[in-house]
This record gives sequence, C-alpha cells and structure tokens, in this order.
Amino acid sequence: FGLPAKSLMELAKEAKKLGQDDPRRIVHSLKAGLALILVSLFYYIDPLYSTFGDNTTWAVMTAVVIFEFSVGATLGKSVNRMIATLGGGALSIGVCRLATVFGNTGKAIVIDIFVFAIAAMVTFARFFPKLKARCDYGLMIFILTFSLISVSSYRDDNIAKMALERLSTIVVGCCATILVSICICPVWIGEDLHKLVALNIEKLGKFLEGFGGEYFGLPSSDRSFLQGYRSVLNSQSSEENMANLAKWEPGHGRFRFFHPWKQYLTIGSLTRQCAIKIDVLNNYLNPQIQTSSEIPSEVKEQCKTISLECGKALKESSASIRTMIRIDTVHLHIGKSKTAAENLKSLFKTGVWKEADLLEIAPATAV
Amino acid sequence: FGLPAKSLMELAKEAKKLGQDDPRRIVHSLKAGLALILVSLFYYIDPLYSTFGDNTTWAVMTAVVIFEFSVGATLGKSVNRMIATLGGGALSIGVCRLATVFGNTGKAIVIDIFVFAIAAMVTFARFFPKLKARCDYGLMIFILTFSLISVSSYRDDNIAKMALERLSTIVVGCCATILVSICICPVWIGEDLHKLVALNIEKLGKFLEGFGGEYFGLPSSDRSFLQGYRSVLNSQSSEENMANLAKWEPGHGRFRFFHPWKQYLTIGSLTRQCAIKIDVLNNYLNPQIQTSSEIPSEVKEQCKTISLECGKALKESSASIRTMIRIDTVHLHIGKSKTAAENLKSLFKTGVWKEADLLEIAPATAV
Repeated sequence: FGLPAKSLMELAKEAKKLGQDDPRRIVHSLKAGLALILVSLFYYIDPLYSTFGDNTTWAVMTAVVIFEFSVGATLGKSVNRMIATLGGGALSIGVCRLATVFGNTGKAIVIDIFVFAIAAMVTFARFFPKLKARCDYGLMIFILTFSLISVSSYRDDNIAKMALERLSTIVVGCCATILVSICICPVWIGEDLHKLVALNIEKLGKFLEGFGGEYFGLPSSDRSFLQGYRSVLNSQSSEENMANLAKWEPGHGRFRFFHPWKQYLTIGSLTRQCAIKIDVLNNYLNPQIQTSSEIPSEVKEQCKTISLECGKALKESSASIRTMIRIDTVHLHIGKSKTAAENLKSLFKTGVWKEADLLEIAPATAV
Repeated sequence: FGLPAKSLMELAKEAKKLGQDDPRRIVHSLKAGLALILVSLFYYIDPLYSTFGDNTTWAVMTAVVIFEFSVGATLGKSVNRMIATLGGGALSIGVCRLATVFGNTGKAIVIDIFVFAIAAMVTFARFFPKLKARCDYGLMIFILTFSLISVSSYRDDNIAKMALERLSTIVVGCCATILVSICICPVWIGEDLHKLVALNIEKLGKFLEGFGGEYFGLPSSDRSFLQGYRSVLNSQSSEENMANLAKWEPGHGRFRFFHPWKQYLTIGSLTRQCAIKIDVLNNYLNPQIQTSSEIPSEVKEQCKTISLECGKALKESSASIRTMIRIDTVHLHIGKSKTAAENLKSLFKTGVWKEADLLEIAPATAV
C-alpha cells in the first residue's frame, strides 16, 4: 500500500498548489459543475423536455464543450457555435430541398457531393490565418452541423424541425453557460493580459535595479530577480492568444468595449526586445567572462546609476499600466539615467558594449 | 459589383498562395471530405444503419471533430476520445445503478450530485500541466460522456445499450478517420518537427555566414538572411506542441516508435539561445552604433573568419540533422573558428564584446 498512498499524497499536494496559485481554478471547476446541473434541469422538468425531446442532449453537450476558463473564451466559442449552427443548418435545408428533385437514389449522391465539397472547402478555409484566429471553432461546427443534418435527411424527412431543435437547444445551452460564466466570479482574460504585460515590465525593472550591484561585486541575498526576466522571452504566443480572446469580452470595470487590445501586443513585443538585451547583460554576470576589476570607481558609479534608474523607470511604467494612471516621475528617472550615460560616454570613448544599456531606455519611453 | 469582385479576387489569390506554400493543405481538405463520406455510408447502407440507429450521428460527429492536419494530432485525439468514452460510459452505468436504489425522486438528486462532483473534479484535473499536455481533450470527453449518459438515464432506462452504441459508433468513426489520415498522403508531424529544427539552425548559419561581410561594409545584394533568424526567437511553443503530438505517431520511415522527441526540444532551446546572441550581433549592424572604422585589417580578417566558420558549422549541423548522417567536417569548421578567435584574442586583449561570437560555438558543438 505504501507506493500508491505516497503518489496519492503527492497528487494532493500538487492539486493544493494549483489551487493556491490561482484560487479562481477551484471556482471555475465548481462553476463548470453548476452549468451542467443547470442545463440538465431540461431533462428533469417535463414541459421543457417535451419541447425538445431527445435533442436536449445538445444542450448538455454545448455546456460541456463551451465552458472555458475565461469569459472571453466562453463568449467567443458560444458566438461561434450559435452562428455556425444557424448557418450550417440553413445551408443543409437548402441543399436537401435541392436534392429531393433528383429522386431517391439521386438524392443520396447529390447530398454526398455537397457534403464532400463543402467539408473540403471549409476545411481549407480553416488554414487562412485570420479565420483561424477568430473562428476556427465556428468553421468546424459549421461542417459538423451541415453534414449531420444533410446526412440525416436520408432517414428523416423533417429536417427543418431537426435543424431548428438543434439550434434552439444549442442557444439554450450557450445562454446557461454564459450566465454562469459572467455572473459568478467572472474571469476576464483582458484583465489577465493587462496584468501580465505590467508584470513582465516589472520583472525587467527588478532585474535592472539589482543588476548594477550584482555586476560590481555586491551580491545580494535574494537572487531570484536574476531569473525572473526569462519567462518574458517566451510570452509572445500566450499574449497573442489572450488579446484575441479579450476582444470577445463585453466592457467591464475600467475596460470599455473597444479597449485597444492591440496596444498590449505592441508593448509586449517591446518588452521582449528589452528582455533579449537583458539576457545579454545577464551573460556578463557569468564569472568566466567577468571583465577585469580595474574599472575606475567613477565609471562604476555611473554604470550603476544607469542600471538603477532604468530599472526604476521600468518599474514605474509597470505601476502606471497597472493603475492606469500616468506617472510623470518615469521621465525623471529616464532623464537621470541618460545623464549618467552621457557622463559615462565622456569618461571612456572606446567602450562600445555599455551602450546596450542605453537601448533599454527605448521601451520605457514608448509606454 | 466592383468592390466584392475585387475582394473575391484577393481571397482567391490568398487561397492560391496558401495552397502553393504547402500543397498538403489541399490534400488535407480533400481527405476531410472523404472521411465524412466514408462515415456517412453508415446512414445509406441499411444493415449498418439498423445496428446503430440514430446513434450513427456520433460516427459522423467523431469524423468531423477528430480529423486534424497531422497523423499525430488525429491519433492523439482518437485515442483520447475512445478511452474517455469507455471510461465515462462505464462510470455512468455504475452511478445509475447506484442511484436507482434511492427511488424515483432520489435518483435524480443522486445523479445530479455525482454529475456536479465529477464535472468539477475532472475540470480541475485539466489544470494539471501534465494532463493538459497529453489528455486535455480526453478529460473533456469524459465529462461529456458521463454527464450525457447519466442525465439521459432519467428518461431512458436502457442506458447500458445507449453507452455501448455510443462507444461503438465512436470507435467506428475513429477507425475510418485514422484510416484516411494514415493511408492517403499522411502528414507526419514528427517529420515536420525534424525539418523545423534543422531549418532553424540553418537560418542562424546563413546569418553568421553573411554577417562578417555585412558588418565590415561589404553589403550583399540579398539581405533577406538578416531577417531569417527572427522567427527562431518565437519557436518554443510550437516546437513543444509538435513534440507532444509526435509522440502519438507510430514508427514510419527513418523514425522509429520511441524516437527521442525530447532531444529536439533541447536542440530547439539551444538554437533559441543562439538566436538571442545573433539578435545582439544584428544590433551592431545598426548604423547609429557602428563602431569607428579604424579596425586594423588583420582584426577584420579574423572576425570574418570566426563568423564565416561558425556559420558553416551551423549549416552543416543542420544538414547532418536533416539527412540523419553524421558529418565530421563540422568539427573542422569549429576548429578553424576557434583558432581565429584565439588569434583575435592575442591581437587585442581589451576587446570584451567580440567574445559574444565565441559563445555561439556552444550550440553547434552540442548537436
């Protein structure tokens, strides 16, 4: 019994950590259960069940498939699903009307030709980058609805009723899911993106603040800030994904409906460029390529000032993003850092490599 | 009519470009249509239809939902779907047996409690990073099957038959899809990963080969190689995703079943570190921070040699990965480049920044 009990303990520990890192995960899981129960009521309440019959399955299915962690993802999927079901259903009704002209055997062939052609065309459409970003899921549901209803028409004549029932149950499922998603502790992905961008800038700021001391031989006790910037390097795809989903979200709090989500991507990519430069600075901390310590103390002082003031400027930019309030002291820090850089330049004209520091000011001013 | 006709032309042009960039996309679209037709035969052929009845829908649905671009993704999804349907169905039968003990009203309550608890638990399980990477889809289908069958049990007593029919139709749908996916022009994602990793190294090699000439004022006519390395910087998430999917693929060609896909990730991350260093070198090409041209010609020569030989070494590593044959001349080039670096070092002891070049040799040797 020893081994499984131990691995079970580890599992519990990991689960606890996941929950503590982000308690919204626990709330999300409970919400998923609740949405299902809400939809399953359609089965238990007689007047509701008699309207939809066996198609009530679609409502349950919709609730499971559509419920995502953030409001943006849930809304995006439901809008996609509803429009695609409507479109696919309407098209299949049209095709079946057309096919009945060709008699009983001809009907099956005509329908199959249409199913093949439309499935192939829509599958190809999913490769278009723009469509892939916004409605990949919708295109899949379009194929699904169209082929399901078209193919069933061979066995069931009343496909208009079937399409309508499918659509209405899916709308019901979507509404129940959206209701739960927005009304109970909503998770706004736009807000997450906002915080992520601010946090990334802060990480870089922390690095630069500590870098000066670290480089000139005053190691601090807590060195975790030296690693923090690494996660910034690989943040692109998640930021793009979040911005895509954030577009679906309705206005909430300080975020209005047409919030400029694209700006976040611009800031994010500037932050990444800055992180790359910081990665290079970090390499200089490597003891193997440490420069000789014959640097005059005045040069040291100026270098430290550049790094410290850049760091402060970045940290204040981050705070200014987070609170959405313009902080004017940012320019003060950049000014100080620039003066220090000028001083440094006049101190040694030959040193090229320190200019890397100067480049880091650019992102901060761009905010 | 002018405007829509024009935008239609543009659409056609974009579609043509997508098809030319990767003709496998067209084949994939046709395959998707074919898989659907294959599955829809179940509707048209009487003995097959009479076995499964209305549940034949699940086969059509499976074919649409599971068919992905690569064999790895299709196989991963089908295995997930089949196992999850089996597990969810079995569990729901057990729960329903248990629930019938509590009488008619009690049954609904007991089932709802179970649906809520299991949906919440499994939704939470989807947050575990390991489970998310391997069986996120399976967990969703598990919730789906379990709740669908459990909830239906209130209206339909013979849920064992229902669960079995659902499972068998899904297996049929999966098999048809896998057959089409593997037998007709299969797209192996493992092969794509292999090529991507080799291509990324080649891009860096090309940059370094051309960099020497570019930096010392011999601009070449084709400067596209200077931008090529940029795509390498953001390749992490796509590489990880591909490696995950590649694990599902059976052995084919020169790739055996337990091909070390993880190694590709290691090489990929080394390549990215190298790309970051190259990004810094690229900044030196910026005319604003061009160093003074008072560099003695001997230093120039050695720098060029380092860059050129590093580039050649990387390109040969790339070729050696692509052909899966060890190429021994790689070490020759690294040796040459190292000698040049040593010469350079002895030429000027003070220059720190050129050591960046030296660091680029590391990834090449690691291959």
